[in-house]
Formats: sequence, C-alpha cells, structure tokens
Amino acid sequence: MNPLELRQQLIHYFNEDIGSGDKTCEALFDTNPLQGKGEFIAKQKGIFAGEKILEQAYGLWDKDIQLQLFKKDGDIVHKGDRIATVDGSYQILLTTERVILNIMQHLSGIATMTAKAVTALANSTIKVVDTRKTTPGIRMLEKYAVRCGGGVNHRFGLDDAIMLKDNHIAAIGSIGQAVKKVRDVTGHMVKIEVEIENEEQLQAAIDADVDVIMFDNMSPHNINRIITQVPSHIITEASGNITLENIHEYSNVKVDIISLGFITHSAPALDISFNVMEGLK
Amino acid sequence: MNPLELRQQLIHYFNEDIGSGDKTCEALFDTNPLQGKGEFIAKQKGIFAGEKILEQAYGLWDKDIQLQLFKKDGDIVHKGDRIATVDGSYQILLTTERVILNIMQHLSGIATMTAKAVTALANSTIKVVDTRKTTPGIRMLEKYAVRCGGGVNHRFGLDDAIMLKDNHIAAIGSIGQAVKKVRDVTGHMVKIEVEIENEEQLQAAIDADVDVIMFDNMSPHNINRIITQVPSHIITEASGNITLENIHEYSNVKVDIISLGFITHSAPALDISFNVMEGLK
Amino acid sequence: MNPLELRQQLIHYFNEDIGSGDKTCEALFDTNPLQGKGEFIAKQKGIFAGEKILEQAYGLWDKDIQLQLFKKDGDIVHKGDRIATVDGSYQILLTTERVILNIMQHLSGIATMTAKAVTALANSTIKVVDTRKTTPGIRMLEKYAVRCGGGVNHRFGLDDAIMLKDNHIAAIGSIGQAVKKVRDVTGHMVKIEVEIENEEQLQAAIDADVDVIMFDNMSPHNINRIITQVPSHIITEASGNITLENIHEYSNVKVDIISLGFITHSAPALDISFNVMEGLK
Amino acid sequence: MNPLELRQQLIHYFNEDIGSGDKTCEALFDTNPLQGKGEFIAKQKGIFAGEKILEQAYGLWDKDIQLQLFKKDGDIVHKGDRIATVDGSYQILLTTERVILNIMQHLSGIATMTAKAVTALANSTIKVVDTRKTTPGIRMLEKYAVRCGGGVNHRFGLDDAIMLKDNHIAAIGSIGQAVKKVRDVTGHMVKIEVEIENEEQLQAAIDADVDVIMFDNMSPHNINRIITQVPSHIITEASGNITLENIHEYSNVKVDIISLGFITHSAPALDISFNVMEGLK
Amino acid sequence: MNPLELRQQLIHYFNEDIGSGDKTCEALFDTNPLQGKGEFIAKQKGIFAGEKILEQAYGLWDKDIQLQLFKKDGDIVHKGDRIATVDGSYQILLTTERVILNIMQHLSGIATMTAKAVTALANSTIKVVDTRKTTPGIRMLEKYAVRCGGGVNHRFGLDDAIMLKDNHIAAIGSIGQAVKKVRDVTGHMVKIEVEIENEEQLQAAIDADVDVIMFDNMSPHNINRIITQVPSHIITEASGNITLENIHEYSNVKVDIISLGFITHSAPALDISFNVMEGLK
Amino acid sequence: MNPLELRQQLIHYFNEDIGSGDKTCEALFDTNPLQGKGEFIAKQKGIFAGEKILEQAYGLWDKDIQLQLFKKDGDIVHKGDRIATVDGSYQILLTTERVILNIMQHLSGIATMTAKAVTALANSTIKVVDTRKTTPGIRMLEKYAVRCGGGVNHRFGLDDAIMLKDNHIAAIGSIGQAVKKVRDVTGHMVKIEVEIENEEQLQAAIDADVDVIMFDNMSPHNINRIITQVPSHIITEASGNITLENIHEYSNVKVDIISLGFITHSAPALDISFNVMEGLK
Repeated sequence: MNPLELRQQLIHYFNEDIGSGDKTCEALFDTNPLQGKGEFIAKQKGIFAGEKILEQAYGLWDKDIQLQLFKKDGDIVHKGDRIATVDGSYQILLTTERVILNIMQHLSGIATMTAKAVTALANSTIKVVDTRKTTPGIRMLEKYAVRCGGGVNHRFGLDDAIMLKDNHIAAIGSIGQAVKKVRDVTGHMVKIEVEIENEEQLQAAIDADVDVIMFDNMSPHNINRIITQVPSHIITEASGNITLENIHEYSNVKVDIISLGFITHSAPALDISFNVMEGLK
Repeated sequence: MNPLELRQQLIHYFNEDIGSGDKTCEALFDTNPLQGKGEFIAKQKGIFAGEKILEQAYGLWDKDIQLQLFKKDGDIVHKGDRIATVDGSYQILLTTERVILNIMQHLSGIATMTAKAVTALANSTIKVVDTRKTTPGIRMLEKYAVRCGGGVNHRFGLDDAIMLKDNHIAAIGSIGQAVKKVRDVTGHMVKIEVEIENEEQLQAAIDADVDVIMFDNMSPHNINRIITQVPSHIITEASGNITLENIHEYSNVKVDIISLGFITHSAPALDISFNVMEGLK
Repeated sequence: MNPLELRQQLIHYFNEDIGSGDKTCEALFDTNPLQGKGEFIAKQKGIFAGEKILEQAYGLWDKDIQLQLFKKDGDIVHKGDRIATVDGSYQILLTTERVILNIMQHLSGIATMTAKAVTALANSTIKVVDTRKTTPGIRMLEKYAVRCGGGVNHRFGLDDAIMLKDNHIAAIGSIGQAVKKVRDVTGHMVKIEVEIENEEQLQAAIDADVDVIMFDNMSPHNINRIITQVPSHIITEASGNITLENIHEYSNVKVDIISLGFITHSAPALDISFNVMEGLK
Repeated sequence: MNPLELRQQLIHYFNEDIGSGDKTCEALFDTNPLQGKGEFIAKQKGIFAGEKILEQAYGLWDKDIQLQLFKKDGDIVHKGDRIATVDGSYQILLTTERVILNIMQHLSGIATMTAKAVTALANSTIKVVDTRKTTPGIRMLEKYAVRCGGGVNHRFGLDDAIMLKDNHIAAIGSIGQAVKKVRDVTGHMVKIEVEIENEEQLQAAIDADVDVIMFDNMSPHNINRIITQVPSHIITEASGNITLENIHEYSNVKVDIISLGFITHSAPALDISFNVMEGLK
Repeated sequence: MNPLELRQQLIHYFNEDIGSGDKTCEALFDTNPLQGKGEFIAKQKGIFAGEKILEQAYGLWDKDIQLQLFKKDGDIVHKGDRIATVDGSYQILLTTERVILNIMQHLSGIATMTAKAVTALANSTIKVVDTRKTTPGIRMLEKYAVRCGGGVNHRFGLDDAIMLKDNHIAAIGSIGQAVKKVRDVTGHMVKIEVEIENEEQLQAAIDADVDVIMFDNMSPHNINRIITQVPSHIITEASGNITLENIHEYSNVKVDIISLGFITHSAPALDISFNVMEGLK
Repeated sequence: MNPLELRQQLIHYFNEDIGSGDKTCEALFDTNPLQGKGEFIAKQKGIFAGEKILEQAYGLWDKDIQLQLFKKDGDIVHKGDRIATVDGSYQILLTTERVILNIMQHLSGIATMTAKAVTALANSTIKVVDTRKTTPGIRMLEKYAVRCGGGVNHRFGLDDAIMLKDNHIAAIGSIGQAVKKVRDVTGHMVKIEVEIENEEQLQAAIDADVDVIMFDNMSPHNINRIITQVPSHIITEASGNITLENIHEYSNVKVDIISLGFITHSAPALDISFNVMEGLK
C-alpha cells in the first residue's frame, strides 16, 4: 500500500464525517485537555485487517498519540480479543472513533470473508483471488484486505493487465484476432487473459498462447473435462457463480486460481468495538 | 443529492479503475467507431437505486450517449427485469461497465437490505433509519440508497446534529450537565439526541428536554417498560444489536425509529448484469 | 472547527498568495538563517477571533516556530493590546505575514460586528445568529468567528436543515402541503423552519407544527402583535432589514433569535498589525 | 479572469453550500419539472460586478438555462434596476440562488467601494489600486471586482513583483543593499517597489533607481514636500491610513497611485435580490 | 489514455500558465468577438503525437471551436506540413496557444526520438521500450508518445509489475530467495523481471523461472555469449548505457526488447508553430 | 520556490509512480526494518539543481531520514562527485529512488544547459533568460533550475506580465493602439513587452514607451543596426532561432537579454546515479 496515497484517503474519509466540525465534542471538550485511553475489541471471530490504517490515522491528528497493537494484519481474532490500545486526547479519540472503526470493520470483514473462501478450498492448491468488483473509491484498501485474508489480488484496474471478455471478442470476431490485435501494441510486462466458455474457445485461447485462461461460468465437471488440454505454462482461473456455499465443489477442479466477487462486494463488516476510558491529565 | 459533488465522485471512481487507460479496449477499438447497445438486467429480486448515477455517469463520457430508464429509484426489480438500456460508443460502454455496475449493485444492495428491514416492521409505524456506519468515501451515495429502500436518514456526520453517547456523558459527569454545555453553544437548527441505557438516564434525558432519546442496546421488553414516561414531543429511537433476524421482535416497541448499521455496512451487492450488443455505425 | 479541513484551507490560502514563491524574501534571505520575533498588536478595539488559525498556520511551515498567545478567542482587545508573539525564521515570518493577518483581521472583524449586535440586544434574551450570506469558500471560518463574537450559528448549508421560503411555498401551494412533503422524506434529526410574512401564514405554520418560524421582513410591532399565538415549543426568529442601526428596536420583540446577514457579509476588517523584530541566530 | 479556474472555484463554492444535497428542494421538487424565471434586482445604488460569474455559474448546472444580462460589469445600478433574468428549472434556480447572490453582492460591494474612492479623487489623475489585503481564497474575483469599480490592480501576490518593506530593509541594512540583492536574481519583467517613510529613505530609493516608490503612512503635506525629488520615470504611490473619509485630502498629492486596503477588506455587500416567478412546463 | 484523467491534466496545465488570467488578451479582446483560424505547422521533420490532446484541449474552452486534423498520431511530418487547423474565438486561440504547443512539441519530440531508436534497430526484431525515467507528472502522456513513435511501454510504475534490481537482491541474499518471496504474495497477473549482470545471476534467474530477464549494462558481445541459455518462453531485455549513437551495435543481440531512458528523459522538443489568421465575425 | 506548493507537487509525483503500492518492496521488505545508506553520484559533468527537492522529498516519508548535502544548487559537479548521502529505511530509499532521480536529473539537465548558454555569452553582459516553453505541470521547478544554472526568469505565465506578440498587434491594428489599450487597464506593477520584427515596429514600440522590446527572429547584424535607437531605460531582448550552436554569434549584440526556449524544452537529463548500501538495524 502506498502510504502517501493512504494518508490522503484518510484525510478525505475524516473530512466526510466531520465536515465543518464535531459539534458534540467541540461543545463539550474544546478547552478541556482531558486524556483518555481506548481499546479496540473484537466482538466476533474473524481476521484482522487494519494495522497500517491505525498507524497512519492517529498520526494525522496528533504526533503524541500512543498506539499499541496486539494483533497483526491477517491474525485471527476471537470475540473479546484486544486488537489495539490508544492513548491520547480524549476529544480526538471520540472524534475519530467512527471513521476508524468503519474502515477497520469493513476491511476486516473482507479479510474474514476471504479467509472463509480460502478455508473452503484448503485441501487444494487453488488460490483465492479478488476481482474489480470493489466498492468505488477504496479499491486499494479492499485489495489490501483480501491479502490480509489470505487471498491474492487479480489485476488492480483496466490499465495493468489485459482481459479479453466475451464482448471484446464478439466485436473483433475471434479470440485469435483479438489476442493478435492486443499483442501488437501491448508491453512485455502485461499479461493477457482470455475468458472462455466452451472447448472451441479454449482451443483458440491455447493456440493464441495467452498467459491466463478463465473458465467463465462453467461447472467443476465441465472445467475438469477440458482443462487437461491446457499446457502447464498457462495459468487457469475459474470464475462466475461461485459462492461461499458452493465453493467446496471447486476444490478438486484443476485450476490454479478461483476469482470471487463476493469477498469484496458482499462481505459484511466484522464487529469491532472501541471502548474509551477516561484518563488523567 | 448534490449533482456537482456526484459528478466529481464519479470522475474519481472512473479514474480509480481506468488509471492511465483501458489497455484492452484501446488496443481493440481505439480507431473503431463501433456503436453498441447495452442493457442492465436484474439477476435477482431487490430494490433498484441508481437513476441519478446512470444519468450523470454516461454524460461525463459523451453527450450523445442515449440512456433509457425502465425502473425508477425505489422500484422493485425481479430476476430478468430490464432496468435500463444505453446506446452509444461500443468502447465507452465496455470501459465504463464495471464502475457503473459496482455503484449500482452496491447501492441497490443497500436499498434492498433497507427494504427488508422496512418490511419486517411493516405492521408498525416505526421508521427505519441509517447510521454513520457507512463505507468510507461514499456516504452521500449510501444514504441516498437508504432512502431508495424506504428508509430515512439519521444525521449525515458529526457536524449536523448533536449526539451525546456514553463516553461523552461519562467525561462530563451527567446527562444534565452535558446537555447544558451543548445547548449553550449550539444553534437553534441543531437537534440534540442522547443515548440512554436505563431508567435513571431516561429520566435525566427527559428532564433535560432533549429532542431525541435513543434506547441503546435495550430489549424490546425493557424499552416498552419505561418508554411511557417519555413526553410525546420527544422522538424515541431504538438502536444496538438489532439484526434482520431479530428486528421483528421490535415491531411492537413504542419507539418512533429504529437505526440499523447493517443496512449500510453489511448489505451484499444486488446482482445486476450488463449485456452489450454490437450495433451498426 | 475541523482541524484537518482547516489545515487544507490554510495551505490553499498560502498558495493563493505565494504562488511560485515569495520573490522578495527568496532574493534577500534564501540562504540566511536569520531568526526573528513578531508580535500581533490590535490597532483598534474589537473582539479577537483566530486562536486556532494561529496554532495551525505556523505549524504548516516549521515545527519549531514558537507561538505564544495572550488573548483567547472571544476576548476583547483594545488598541495597543498584544495578541500573540511568534519566534522563528525571519523569512517565514515575513512570507506568511499577510495571509495570517488577512484571516485574523477578517474573522476578528466578523466577531466584532457580531458582538456589537449582541450588545445592542443585551437587555433581552434574544440570541444573535448568522445566515448563509457568507463569503464564498470560508464559511466554516466565518461561522467560527460568529461564535467568537457571542453569536450562534444558523444552519451551515442547504444539507443540514430544512428552510421553506416564499418561493418554495408558492410553488407547492401552501405551507401545510410543503411541510407535509418535506416531513415525509426528511430524517428525524433535521429541523424544519418556515418563513412567514403575515398572520395567515403564521397560523398555517403553527398548524403544521414546524420547529422554527421566521418572521420575515416584519416590524417589531407587527411581530409582537401575532407572536403570542405561537406555542412555546416552536422557536421564533426575526429576519430581514435588520441593521446595526435599527436592531435596538427589536430588543423587546418576543422572538428567540434574530438572524443577521450583515455580521458576515458586511463586517469591516479589524485592524491588527504584525511587528517584526530581528533576532539572533 | 481565467475561466477554467473560475469554473473550479464556482464548483467549490456551490459544494460548500449544498454539501450532500439541498434537502428542501429535493423534498419538494425532485421529480417535478417545474420551470421558473428569476430576476436579479438591485436594492441599492452601486456598481455591478458579476457578468462573468453569472455566465459560468448556471452553465455548470444545465446547458439549457437562459441568461439575459441587462447590466455590464462596471455599470451603475440604482435601486430597483433589473440586472439580469434567468429562465430554467425552478429547482436549480432556488438551489443556486444563495451562492450566486453571495458572490455578486460581495463583488459588487467591492466595486462600489472602489468607485467611491475613485470618485473622491475624481479631480485628480491619481489611480486607485488595491492591495493583497483580500479575503482568503477569492483574490482573483476580488481583484476583478476592483477593476469593475474603476480601480487598478496592484501585484497579485508574492510571486509577481518585488516589494521591499521596512522589515525587509531593516534585516538587510539599507535600501541600496536590499535593492542590489534583489536585482541580481530577479527577472527583467519584474518591477521593484520600495516603501519609504522619510526623506533619507526616499533618496536611497531614488539612488537605487527602483520602479516604484511607496510613501508609507505619510501625510499629504509631507509627501508633497519631498516628492518633487523623484524623477518622472519612477512611479509614486501613497499608502497607509487612507480611508474613504480622508481620501479627498490626497487629491492634490503628486503621486501616481493610491493603494487602499479597505476597498477589499472592508467593503459591505451591495444589496441585490433574486425574485423567482413560477413558470410553465 | 484515460480521457477523464487527460481532461483533468489539461485543466491543470492551462491553469499553470494562465493563473489569474491572460492579462494581455483580456486587455485587448475581452469584449471583442473576433474570430480566427489557426494552423499548426511542423517546422522540422519528426513524428507527430498529439491527436487526443488537440481533441480534448479546445473542448475545455468552447464547444464550438472547430478542429480539423491532417495528421494522425504516429504520422511522419516534414518541415512545412500542416498538422491541424482550428477555427474559433481569436482570444481563445491566443490564450491556449503556448500550453497546447508545449504539450504537442514535447510529446512529438519523444515520439520522434523513439522512432529514431526504432529505425536504428530496423533490421532486427527487437522492440524499443521506455522506462520509468519520465518527466514527473506527465508519465501517462509521455508513454502515449512512445507508442506514437513505434515503441512499446515497459511497466507504468511500481504497482503494475515486479522488478528485482541489484539492491533488492543484495538485501535479500539471492535471486532465488527474492523471487520466491515475491511470488508468494504476488497476483497471477503480475510479471516478474530480474536484472542480471553476469552468467551466474543469469542461471539463478532461469532457475527461478522469472518472466523477464534484463541484461543490465552488458555489452552486445557479452549478452550474446550467454543468452543462448535462456529458454524461449522467458522474455529478454537489454538495458543500460545504450544511446542513439551506439544502439546499432545492439541490432544483432538476441534480446526481445531494449529499454531506453533517453527517449523520454532527453528528447528535445519537436519544433511546431501555430500561425493565427484573423477571421471575420 | 513555494515550499507548501513544492510539497504538494512531490506528493503528486510520488503517487504517479507508486500508485497503489511498490509491489516489489512490499513483497520483500514490508516487515523488515532494514536500514540503508544511499549516495547520489554525478555520472557526468554538469550543474546541480535539487537541494530543495532533496530536503523536502524524504521528509514526506519519514522525519528520521538523515540527509547530508555535499553540493549546493548551482555547483558544478564532475563525474564521480558525491552530491548527497541519505540514511534511513532501506525500503523507503528504494521506493523513492526513481522519482527523486527523475526530478534531480531533469532539473540538473536544465541547469546544465542554461550554464552552457551562459558560458557561450560569457564575454558579454547579456543575461540568459527562459521562456514559457516549459514541460507542462512543472514550470515552477524548471524555472528554479534555470536560476540554478545562472539564468534569469522571464515572466512566469500569462498573468504576471504583458507581452504583445505579432498576433495581438495584427488584430488591434498597430503597436501604438495595442499598448494604449493594455496600459489603460493594467496595473503599475506589470511590465509591458512588445515583439518587433523591423525598424518601423521598433520605432512604434519606442514611441509607445514600452518597458521591454524583443527583437524577434532577427540576425545579430540586423539587431545591432537599429538597436541604437532604443533609449537606455528600455530593456532589449533577442529571441527566436537561437541555439547552443549559434548563440556565440549574439555575444556582441547590444541587447540586455537573450531568451532561449531550448534550455527548458530540449535539455537532456544530467546523469546522476543513486547507490544504496545495506546498513545495520
């Protein structure tokens, strides 16, 4: 994660919530140098994602706030586990609480969902990867959460890898022509992936010697029936209609990776609470 | 929703995904004036939220793209329903597809979850309201989605209403003192809400004549036991540990509103697909 | 005031003045580690507003600049009073002088004008509030200055409260219909204010049980004639054509607040000077 | 004025006021295609400044809004004069009203104050110029307003001209040394101005052959006593403690220009109203 | 190229040059509806890069400006060739001239330098690629110019591909360990390139089965001596100390690509002029 | 140079290169507190420009990074000279290396080219000045580099000085009319320069008493033939078709300054390397 970019995003998120000022805290504490201690406690089992957020978020407010972390990114947390403590201005602890929790709960929710998918495939060598189906504006953070959960990232966006989908291919005429057109102008550091839906397309993708072949919306049985034709240097991916409920059916599929939209677009937040104790000045 | 602000957010979201360019489409279509038609189809039942997004998003790319809407914000969509069609540059339809779907699916997911909560309370007059537990950066859109789903918005952020929570009150000493401190400096257009957890606090809040009283983490039974003491001009709110599973237990509670974090922080995306058909130049 | 937002605004204001560089100071001092001491001196009587600005502004330039404040926000200053001293790089003191003075003089001017209005009403319980008639771009600061001057803030903008004005009502048909339309979709934390100009409208507003009624452009006599009809839980506001010259005529009006545009849109700057003394390295 | 920069500033100003949305208008008109006509009417005598603002502001909202201007920048307006009319969406007219009025009233106030100063010097050839004592963030607009009022602009900021003030000179040791240091590194398109307070400094400035000499805080009598020594190719400026009340005393001073802070930092807004009439769809 | 991002960059570039306004044109033409026609003429031989810039740049100013292009990106231009004509407001043509020329001349300079390198290798199959040695802030444009010149892009930045350089490897201990560490956490769409400087490192890179091997600062003779060991599915790159003067020595080297910093960091601008003719209103 | 603006530009430049994160360094070092020492070494002779960049760039990443400078801006560096050393996090040294080198090499290239032009004119008193022909987005830095190389800056942009070129004059009718129009509205701190191409225009410019006359595209002989007519208080400038090859022919021309586009638009980067040594924790 880019720390300079993260800092700018955190400022943006705090400003969204605080606007022209925290009316409640300003009224109560504006001239009050009360110090406090807060602790982040997991309220359900899951995977923690948020170390880097905690480290940067408080630094934007006060260099003297003390943060102590008891969990690392990717650690399992159980209900009641203490994740971190923070010492500093009582007012700052309260004003920043909601935004920090929102980010940590959201990211830990994604990490937890990713870990569930990883676990469901645990008796295979298949890797879980994310997609571009992320919440607008915070993709960098969500893809970091996927890594915390044991997943691996697919391409970040439209500019760092080539993906030829059905609509691309249909307009150009064939997989072969589309790959050729793309390869003519694309740099040597960019991988080319092609979506296929049947055996004929699979053969065309193999003939075009693409880097990655995605079996789109195909059953485990149908994938395994034809995947043997794929030479070993081509990476294979299954995608489409795979859910936490049915992912175990894919654990014997011979693909290298399975990409899952739901780990980012449908992961519920992990419940984490922030308890504040008043301290002494 | 502020259309100027929405426009800036949409540019930000497109740039997040496209970065330095859509490598696939540029390689295939850059000098190709192919036209296409796309249609947005619901792939599961839910509530649509996204009219304003569709209207603005394509306009950022090309003034000549034609959009036709078949559903309005808040409409129920069933699997297979056509939500909208769009005619224009084939390249632009493909480049913008993912970001537009991400927003629409996310917002429709929130609207759908909100509607489920509203339905679960349907035999009461209680209103469903959201919280500040939103995804960082897109609160304006998420709160719009809550309205599409039949919910109502709580305060937007820390600057548009006063909310005295347990930590605020603990540090000041009492509800009465905290309300007094706040009222001395707060404008007449700002409402004051207080969280209470027991009968003693309830009485203090009533004595302080606050605008809204929130019963925090109290059972329906316990709320009903003491809520009769609240004069009718004070709005009452239940909050805390209310889920889609147990919300029906609250339908006989005598509160005016129930606030729910899960409708924004844990709503899965609503599945919507975008089918593109190649057209003629 | 939101300190993260304030920091960004201060950077914006410094960049507006400095552009590509302070040509004079760079030519004279660029390799010169000269230290200096500056003091801010009031050159006329008024109310000081600017503590938070001073604290943040120098920190953007150099963490080692020492600021000492002799006046607090809201304090009266007399001609010759020392407001603050600052020790640090001579070059930074000169480069930042004008922007810091511009902000402090502008805000102290608003605080002073607000205090004059408060004083003119001093034998009443009426509160002085501001309006949205602020200078574009610095509303957060101007509303802070109003509070320094003893005033209270009206709504911040169009998104944090409802205000039904003549044009809104005319288009919908009646106060009753307009309030109903608004109430159906508006959250429970948002107050509703209605402008009225005569007794008939007053009755309609009372019937609609709005939160605040504004008597628009009505004489003290006319307000007092009908205000007795308003139940005590509705806040009343006078507004329109009230100036520093005639505000005393309102001190016996039975309203709760008087809103004044001139305290923000027509307050002359308070004269403050910055004297710099060369120090030793 | 730079139209691209103006557009960005206007978006910033609208967003400051509208935030997440105009709650009132959205509740009343969101699906209502009501059209309206508005007119800007002067409510007091003054100088109009705002043509360019009106032209750009509505275009940000809707390309089909029709604007008709009856006054040009710099025109005198009398109470009751119609400045402009605008036809378009009733909702947009109401949502944008306050921001547009705030800008126009503020700029016309500055233009009017500038014109008063120009008038007070009318029987001389002295030009009225502004200073850097502007409201933070909108200097480009305020300096445009000064031109509308018949004034001329001093330097825009610290980067487009050299100004050697008392503190600069004191640290370097003498006017001669300071001018030499500056001239060694400054481009040929940059003018050098020096503040002087007595005859000795005047001679030093003349000897240094600067472009402009400012007589700082000197009485008309004292300026005239020594200004005859200044060669004709050096521009002369009077500044400091000149007010609208005493400026007439300077009309016989032999300076070329008089710079006035109050025309920007202490000009009250010019009263302009916006009357909206409902139209037909 | 991302058109939304390009539009924002163009606004930034115009604002850098125009600042608070084009003082010359405003003084001369502000109320003058003079129309003009301009033509872009090549003043030396080279490769044109700038179609997309021209198309977007004028649209930011006025939708009615007519642009006609006579050259396409990548076309050779000779001295005197007409590249494009533009019809519209005389004032806008003059105000925008310098920024548009600066971009076009800079990008065409890069395209021309790239084409020279391509030509020097013309009797081989080696591709010319760029590096990250670009001018800060305009990498997207410079990499587009490289493509116009017949080159291909290396990775865009640090986030879209892995590159293990000497310093990375030294700290980890060996190529094998570094590749393993990277592969464990890196997505399947990301290629891994390793810099090698001798035969031992080459063997380690082959053993690690990386995607790309870069021969860093090695002579053509030395590269050819050991490159035969590289299996055909690994891409090979030569880099370091290759100039336009010595690049022909590499035309018989058996690498797939040669990366060149000088095509972006040291390409002189291509001379293009803009001739304006006054038209009729 | 404005340090606040520089800081924002540096963040922008780092983000351009790093995007969502430095994939290589994160994979290798993310939990590794390895410290390192780097040194910047000149690899060819030239003029150094970059002190201020180095000072600010590392501070954005870590306050504890230690920077030691061995060269000052404007110093000659020879091949092998050590420019600076830096001690700190090994990961940060590697992640920031390319952007910092890109800026320093680009600016030092411009300083070096400027110095060559200055040297070529060394037996005259003519000053070398830059133009607006800079790379879009980094003009502030490029003009700083020109000063490091011994040159002087022309106007920064369209807003800080008046320049009447052939197209301006042609549209207005004559130099006299154009100067008059400009002078009527332009402030006293703004200089007016006119381009002339022949004796008749020279006379018109002298008659208009402009501040600067530029001899555009005229041979040294032709300039000298007529320049004697120019009064001494008018600054004279030669421009157009002057290259590093022919600039010596201008050393006897009687102008004050020569402006050169190539020093900014066609200066090759100065080769500087960054050597990193692993340290101890």
